[in-house]
Amino acid sequence: MSVGYPQERLDAKAKVTGRCRFTADLALPGTRIAKYLRSTIAHGKVVGIDVSEALLIAGVEAIFTYADVPKKAFATAGHAFNLDPESRDKADRLLLTDYVRYHGDEIAIVVAIDELAARKALKKIKVTYEEYPVILDHDQALNGQASELHGNSGNIVGEHGYECGDVARAVSEADHCLKGQFRTQMVQHCHMENQVAWAYMDDTDHIIIVSSTQIPHICRCIVSEALDLPISTIQVVKPAVGGGFGNKQDVVLEPMVAFLTQKLEGTPVMIDLSREECLTSTRIRHPFRVDVECAVNEGGQLKALAIDVSSNTGAYASHGHSIAKAAGSKVVPLYPKSAIAYHALTHYSNLPAAGAMRGYGSPQLVFAVECIMEDAARKIAMDSIDFRLKNVARTGDINPLTGKVIESAGIEECLIKGREQFRWEQKKQSHRSYKSGNRRRGLGLACFSYGSGTYPVSVEIAGARMVLNQDGRVSVQVGATEIGQGADTVFAQMAAEQLGIPTSEIRMVSTQDTDTVPFDPGSFASRQTYVASRAVAEAGTLLKKRILSHASDMLEVSTDQLTLSEGVIISPEGTRCLTIGELALDAYYHKTRGGQLTAEVSRKVTANAYSYGCTLVEVEVDIALCQVSILNIQNVHDAGTLINPALAAGQVYGGVGMGISGALSEELLVDPASGWIYNNNLLDYKIATMVDTPDICCAFVETCEPTSAFGNKSLGEPPLISVAPAIRNAILDATGVAINQLPMSPKALFTAFRSEGLI
Amino acid sequence: MSVGYPQERLDAKAKVTGRCRFTADLALPGTRIAKYLRSTIAHGKVVGIDVSEALLIAGVEAIFTYADVPKKAFATAGHAFNLDPESRDKADRLLLTDYVRYHGDEIAIVVAIDELAARKALKKIKVTYEEYPVILDHDQALNGQASELHGNSGNIVGEHGYECGDVARAVSEADHCLKGQFRTQMVQHCHMENQVAWAYMDDTDHIIIVSSTQIPHICRCIVSEALDLPISTIQVVKPAVGGGFGNKQDVVLEPMVAFLTQKLEGTPVMIDLSREECLTSTRIRHPFRVDVECAVNEGGQLKALAIDVSSNTGAYASHGHSIAKAAGSKVVPLYPKSAIAYHALTHYSNLPAAGAMRGYGSPQLVFAVECIMEDAARKIAMDSIDFRLKNVARTGDINPLTGKVIESAGIEECLIKGREQFRWEQKKQSHRSYKSGNRRRGLGLACFSYGSGTYPVSVEIAGARMVLNQDGRVSVQVGATEIGQGADTVFAQMAAEQLGIPTSEIRMVSTQDTDTVPFDPGSFASRQTYVASRAVAEAGTLLKKRILSHASDMLEVSTDQLTLSEGVIISPEGTRCLTIGELALDAYYHKTRGGQLTAEVSRKVTANAYSYGCTLVEVEVDIALCQVSILNIQNVHDAGTLINPALAAGQVYGGVGMGISGALSEELLVDPASGWIYNNNLLDYKIATMVDTPDICCAFVETCEPTSAFGNKSLGEPPLISVAPAIRNAILDATGVAINQLPMSPKALFTAFRSEGLI
Repeated sequence: MSVGYPQERLDAKAKVTGRCRFTADLALPGTRIAKYLRSTIAHGKVVGIDVSEALLIAGVEAIFTYADVPKKAFATAGHAFNLDPESRDKADRLLLTDYVRYHGDEIAIVVAIDELAARKALKKIKVTYEEYPVILDHDQALNGQASELHGNSGNIVGEHGYECGDVARAVSEADHCLKGQFRTQMVQHCHMENQVAWAYMDDTDHIIIVSSTQIPHICRCIVSEALDLPISTIQVVKPAVGGGFGNKQDVVLEPMVAFLTQKLEGTPVMIDLSREECLTSTRIRHPFRVDVECAVNEGGQLKALAIDVSSNTGAYASHGHSIAKAAGSKVVPLYPKSAIAYHALTHYSNLPAAGAMRGYGSPQLVFAVECIMEDAARKIAMDSIDFRLKNVARTGDINPLTGKVIESAGIEECLIKGREQFRWEQKKQSHRSYKSGNRRRGLGLACFSYGSGTYPVSVEIAGARMVLNQDGRVSVQVGATEIGQGADTVFAQMAAEQLGIPTSEIRMVSTQDTDTVPFDPGSFASRQTYVASRAVAEAGTLLKKRILSHASDMLEVSTDQLTLSEGVIISPEGTRCLTIGELALDAYYHKTRGGQLTAEVSRKVTANAYSYGCTLVEVEVDIALCQVSILNIQNVHDAGTLINPALAAGQVYGGVGMGISGALSEELLVDPASGWIYNNNLLDYKIATMVDTPDICCAFVETCEPTSAFGNKSLGEPPLISVAPAIRNAILDATGVAINQLPMSPKALFTAFRSEGLI
Repeated sequence: MSVGYPQERLDAKAKVTGRCRFTADLALPGTRIAKYLRSTIAHGKVVGIDVSEALLIAGVEAIFTYADVPKKAFATAGHAFNLDPESRDKADRLLLTDYVRYHGDEIAIVVAIDELAARKALKKIKVTYEEYPVILDHDQALNGQASELHGNSGNIVGEHGYECGDVARAVSEADHCLKGQFRTQMVQHCHMENQVAWAYMDDTDHIIIVSSTQIPHICRCIVSEALDLPISTIQVVKPAVGGGFGNKQDVVLEPMVAFLTQKLEGTPVMIDLSREECLTSTRIRHPFRVDVECAVNEGGQLKALAIDVSSNTGAYASHGHSIAKAAGSKVVPLYPKSAIAYHALTHYSNLPAAGAMRGYGSPQLVFAVECIMEDAARKIAMDSIDFRLKNVARTGDINPLTGKVIESAGIEECLIKGREQFRWEQKKQSHRSYKSGNRRRGLGLACFSYGSGTYPVSVEIAGARMVLNQDGRVSVQVGATEIGQGADTVFAQMAAEQLGIPTSEIRMVSTQDTDTVPFDPGSFASRQTYVASRAVAEAGTLLKKRILSHASDMLEVSTDQLTLSEGVIISPEGTRCLTIGELALDAYYHKTRGGQLTAEVSRKVTANAYSYGCTLVEVEVDIALCQVSILNIQNVHDAGTLINPALAAGQVYGGVGMGISGALSEELLVDPASGWIYNNNLLDYKIATMVDTPDICCAFVETCEPTSAFGNKSLGEPPLISVAPAIRNAILDATGVAINQLPMSPKALFTAFRSEGLI
């Protein structure tokens, strides 16, 4: 009775009362503040640095420059370690650099007793640069004349391709073949809690890092690599986290605070980035340039998609080519019956480094694919929904990329449910009178498919531990990471369901400490409720077995005759024999029998399940103002069985809101001549606020995914993915103008409307 | 190769470099300071309290008085919860009281932003008392006229007795019967780190307490009882602890800081007692008055001991009558062939509350028994060692109190080894010329037996968890508590031994958090290395099995053909197949096989083993100065197999030093008229310093205790027990004067020498 129930978030009260403590709130007394000296140019070399005046500022305790840090390059991307050296992330970072690769690169760091002293000192450091021409896009990076941003790279981070079916033949045989080029912009995650981490030592060989991270265990591993220390000498503690969206899946600050505390004899040192630093010097979303070709038949059969991606990773690889790789693999399960060719290349540039961000390349790729799909539907004059229904995956289809059966695919049902709930046909009819004049209305649709985890690219492993407390409540530790998304609430429901006790009787140990928490790579790839469900279920089964076994000792009844339901041990006759609290006291304190009843499971998952869904949107476009208003928007999801419908809806509201913002307004602006970032603050960086966000509707189609312990699939990232193309398609429907570049800001609309003669 | 090796303490570097953080070092930013208002009288009632002026002091945030606290009485003694209500500790405390029971009783508490503001406020609180006559000793407490310090108690906390054999008959048949009365004083533990605890809330229903405690899990239980909250809503964290000696086996501050943070909406609140407060308002050693009768035969046979104890628990029960009970049961296994009658009563008084202290009643009782044993040896003119050798336990004897076989008893060997190493006979000869004049020399001997844990009085349970890290090092969590005694080093050695890896490859997770650490009642009763050895050994065996099983998967060799030695997996042919680090990486990161390799065991122990030992001492007494100099002192111990000989010796040095100090100088002084404590500071409370402490020798007889996983028995408390009676016996040998009261200070010697006509 716990799974499927809209349980209130376990952390709701802690967060609304302000009692919940985040990383910076936990800093030890005497924690020093470290601030980076960042480059004021986007490309060049530091030829001189003078810190002598800065060191005289009262309160400054130390300054380290690029000359003082280990010369061992490391990767920051948050992936589980890969046994195959070829599959590991690019190790292209040092803690500080004299070769400046973007506007904001880290050259030196000041440690002071407070932020004010540190900031004063930063102003006193004198840096002399040798400047180089900036490289900002594909053509500049790969024109053969560009200087290499990283040695022997040719400015290429990675390149790959695949082909399912015979695309050339399909194209040649198709009735129509459409082409398009689509571009997406740089956007930032803008999580509420900035990047922050601090570290101290409690011994001569042990470093403790407290960090707002999505990936405590991976963070431990990366710090160990960066500082060349055994992993067991690094301890990472993750308190409550105020959002991450993938940005905290990069290990940006932790190796530095660990390095600093080492240098300062164990003194605690914190880096708490400002919003300005977060906007440019933490990871952004990879801008994609996608050339796509789409072959269709008159009858609505999607024959082929040929996709060519150029992904711009900026100054450092971070997740690098993984983004384009993952995006490419996740598009196939949506249209598995069509031939698909995919080629992608990721290059360096002098932009801020791009990394993981909600959707991990899919929003960019799906923008291109679902735009061209709309163009194709129009070409053959078929309704957008009808066209998708002819081509989308069905349960039992084979994913041609893996050769494995798609065990659950509810996209057909999503489209049908969406059509009905959104009143698609009625709206379509009513729009006929809105296709001219200044205010025009249109409908847009876009679909997506998305994985649940990283298998088989990376290991998928999760751990869960349960402990029966003396009062009968069960403490649960999972390696999967609560970062504000509600994961712990969902795990509590799973544990309660499996054990046969109320969810209120679960105590989630939410602070994660790598010294004591079971192993799990962390929160990314919308993997957690899927991958960890098995470990939680098995640990629950095991603990329940131990509870019933102890009940059997107490009651002298065989274990298989007893059940645990609603926290009560029940006999074969249905008698309430004893409460779990009474049993717990006996297990702990009886002098001969029992013991502390616990269960722990670490489980690898060797499957991946695809979530599906679509966005339906109705817009009104003010041609003169170049302004888009969203009248109605609805996402329909197949995320398998819902563990918590309220939190599932919450994920959709958040994801769709983020999608609208990214579609219509967000963009990190860069000066094309200097590579300087124009708008590194929330005044100039236009993120949608509540005022800009319409009411959002969501609906679910509940399939039951057999490879998950509770039938569930991914839902963290998916709600964002299909929003932008749906809006683009609606604008096209309203105005006849295709905006093939994000964001679809008034400026972009102005340019397009002008070029199309609308204004 | 790990057990039996003098491994350097794992925390040595952390402690000498000052990097180790103790409870107060970890306080959160903004932690408020709370200070108790303590009574200025020893017995009475508060009839008026005015805090209005105090509340006006800047920085004062709240003041709570006895009127504001829950009216639910609770017990502070650190014992595992007992399923039998009759066996639980006396619940006779409130958080604050208006009935004052000792000089320093807690009446109110001030919470302020710093200590200065809190102290200022304390001075402004006006209290009016109604004073009552003070009750300080047995006769005053039990004369029938005394007011009852706790309702319906008759001032009695507990009373019990037992008889092994027929004492009356043995006395009537013996050649000699000696009687004596012995008294011991109030002493304090004087651990380096004072009592300190702080608490905060990170939610509306969850309290986190950080405390310098020996018993994190029991602390959790007691706070839950005191505040009437479910135990799983209380979390206790134990960082490094700077000593406890039993004082931190009482839950003194934790319920109060938990109460305060609850009242202050989760704000962190700390109580950090001053040394002055620690001396009088934390637990002291129970003063004993022991009447003992000893029946012997001319041939040296101890026929009977009849012991009557009055134990003074002071203002609150704390461990109360458990002390006299435990002491009574631990004396029997030393002389199991003699008839023994034991009667004990524990009463309340207006002294500071007495609780657990190293030896838990045994030092007081053994003082009486071993003094009368010396008197008996003198009566029959038999050498002290010869007399003991005729009567002490041998392996295989039956403990008449439990009916169980004593599985290992090395006291005979201890006495023989001591006689030889101490050159007892040679010294005895050489002393013949020192029996007159001002400087006289003498030899003293005393023996003891002591248990290893609390079984069968309390449940004995221990938990251990092991996790193989990616680098092949193994993290170990034990419920047993490191409080400065070196426990974690010894557990690391046990774990390494069992696993087959070097001790350097063990990482002990020393900070204990009840949210994540396996259950174990904690550090007391010299139980840990004995009780927890089994859990550690079993967890080691289990993890090793899992490691070899994974090696078997990797190598395709059956598990039983593989061994793990020195961190390397070895094939049947003796080939080094792979290191544990290589195996660990595969287990974590191989995409299909393995997982995080861990093991957890919670085990109850239903046995108790007796340690034995003796102190041999040579003193010189300056009659005119009434001063005792210790020329040589040696303890010989049977603590079973030594896990770490260097740490074992350290325990002996510390224990003997503490024993000397308690024997010769320490005493908390009380004014007999008012009950005021005279010397609540380390200037006036005469604890031995390094200057006062002679070189201490120790030797061991290594038996192998079969009920322990590694053959070991208790050693934490034992070294102290026999020191005082050995010194008393040596003074008697030197001067002919028996000092039957502790401390044997110059003042006591002056009185005794004068009464015996020596001066």
